Amino acid sequence: MSTGSPQAAQDADPGFDTADPRAVRRAIREGRFTGFTNLVARNYVQGNLIAVPADHADAFEDYARANPEALPLLGRGEPGRRDIPAIAADLDIARDTGGYMVFRDGELVETPRDASPFWRDDLVPFVIGCSFSFEALLQRHGVRLRHLEEGDVSAMYETDRDTVAAGPFGGKLIVSMRALTPADAIRATLISARHPGFHGAPVSLGLPEDLGIADLERSYGGHGMKRVLPGELPVFWACGATGQNAVRAARLPLAITHYKAHMVVTDLPLPEDYA
Amino acid sequence: MSTGSPQAAQDADPGFDTADPRAVRRAIREGRFTGFTNLVARNYVQGNLIAVPADHADAFEDYARANPEALPLLGRGEPGRRDIPAIAADLDIARDTGGYMVFRDGELVETPRDASPFWRDDLVPFVIGCSFSFEALLQRHGVRLRHLEEGDVSAMYETDRDTVAAGPFGGKLIVSMRALTPADAIRATLISARHPGFHGAPVSLGLPEDLGIADLERSYGGHGMKRVLPGELPVFWACGATGQNAVRAARLPLAITHYKAHMVVTDLPLPEDYA
Repeated sequence: MSTGSPQAAQDADPGFDTADPRAVRRAIREGRFTGFTNLVARNYVQGNLIAVPADHADAFEDYARANPEALPLLGRGEPGRRDIPAIAADLDIARDTGGYMVFRDGELVETPRDASPFWRDDLVPFVIGCSFSFEALLQRHGVRLRHLEEGDVSAMYETDRDTVAAGPFGGKLIVSMRALTPADAIRATLISARHPGFHGAPVSLGLPEDLGIADLERSYGGHGMKRVLPGELPVFWACGATGQNAVRAARLPLAITHYKAHMVVTDLPLPEDYA
Repeated sequence: MSTGSPQAAQDADPGFDTADPRAVRRAIREGRFTGFTNLVARNYVQGNLIAVPADHADAFEDYARANPEALPLLGRGEPGRRDIPAIAADLDIARDTGGYMVFRDGELVETPRDASPFWRDDLVPFVIGCSFSFEALLQRHGVRLRHLEEGDVSAMYETDRDTVAAGPFGGKLIVSMRALTPADAIRATLISARHPGFHGAPVSLGLPEDLGIADLERSYGGHGMKRVLPGELPVFWACGATGQNAVRAARLPLAITHYKAHMVVTDLPLPEDYA
């Protein structure tokens, strides 16, 4: 599977309107866009996908509602349906992120670009708020996000903080990290706090050990921009990957999630924000 | 001059209502209370005092308005008057803080408990918002302020940041510092940002060098709690002492300010704040 790069959307003439969420989804579905979604449809909310069998869906919703900083719930689908009309028109959630992880009994068995061969009629999709949405808001207000400048995504870390368990779901809080100047850390705190739908305010900053993170070089999944330069602080936000981690640990017979940085692009406009 | 201690107000039977700003002012004026004002009248706004000759008053107001984070203007008096009815009833600003600094040509010449022998009919008093007000709000919301637990006040530092000059007034920004856990630093940022009248959000945090502070042990004036423990971050707010510094540097023939931690106690109620 190609994971593309965040710059892909900036190439000359991508052949579709990169600002239009419906055009982005169609381009992904037809294989014409294979990049990360963080730099397309930037005026629209994006989300994590977590699909679980129907007999675990209520417990997963309970888990999300008990841990709203990590798992702000944007939408829940119906069993056997691959659309969620409340958040996106003409959505095929099994094809429109362009990258998936398929777990069986907690083991990652496939990372297809199209999940429809693996979809099952009892799967219930959940869409969970994502930091790509607040990154767009931060940039509107002049916060410098160096990981984007470097063509990377933010690093994630497993913390030593327990989430609130529900049914078979539990485990540690996963966070995303951005390296910011002190002034930008303060500005980013104030802006993100106004958006609980995309994780809200940071959960910690400045001291990785406050979250039990011993080594910033060792990120969750190994990817993302991990370097903090002199004059910068690491700033940590609760991350939707917390849900992926919980689903994996619950060893459900089947679960399907989006793949790294290939998010559900919705038609929900990003809120206006006047800092 | 006795500078008292922050615990003084907590002693058994101080002989006056320590929660009532008018009773506090009267006790100070009559020499019955000589402590710091940070733990009395905690539901009321307190302020820095800076009194300058009338021919410099408009320039000083311009300076304050050009640097509102450091110098949020709460009140301005009239030449020759020692009351400011808009902020406090029955105020004698030359006696009611209980501690003053008298500057002649920029030199500190006296630190009296009563400034009335030094007052002049052309002096115009300014009252500037003070961090004691936001400290009370922070504590209401469960932010731990270790310097208060240790019977101390916050440390201040001269930074390498220039203020916006006006007339003879200018110079570097002075900040106050509180050592906070990361979670409290985030909470304190969100709460203080809602109160621009008491300096608003922090100007920096985590990295003293961001403000050109080479050594936290060397505070402005030498006092205050300077230690940052493992698990804490230094958090820096713009400070009203910036104005005192500017007045001193302007070498006015006469200027009178409050003395460390002896503030103008006003009748303005602290705003409600729902975090």
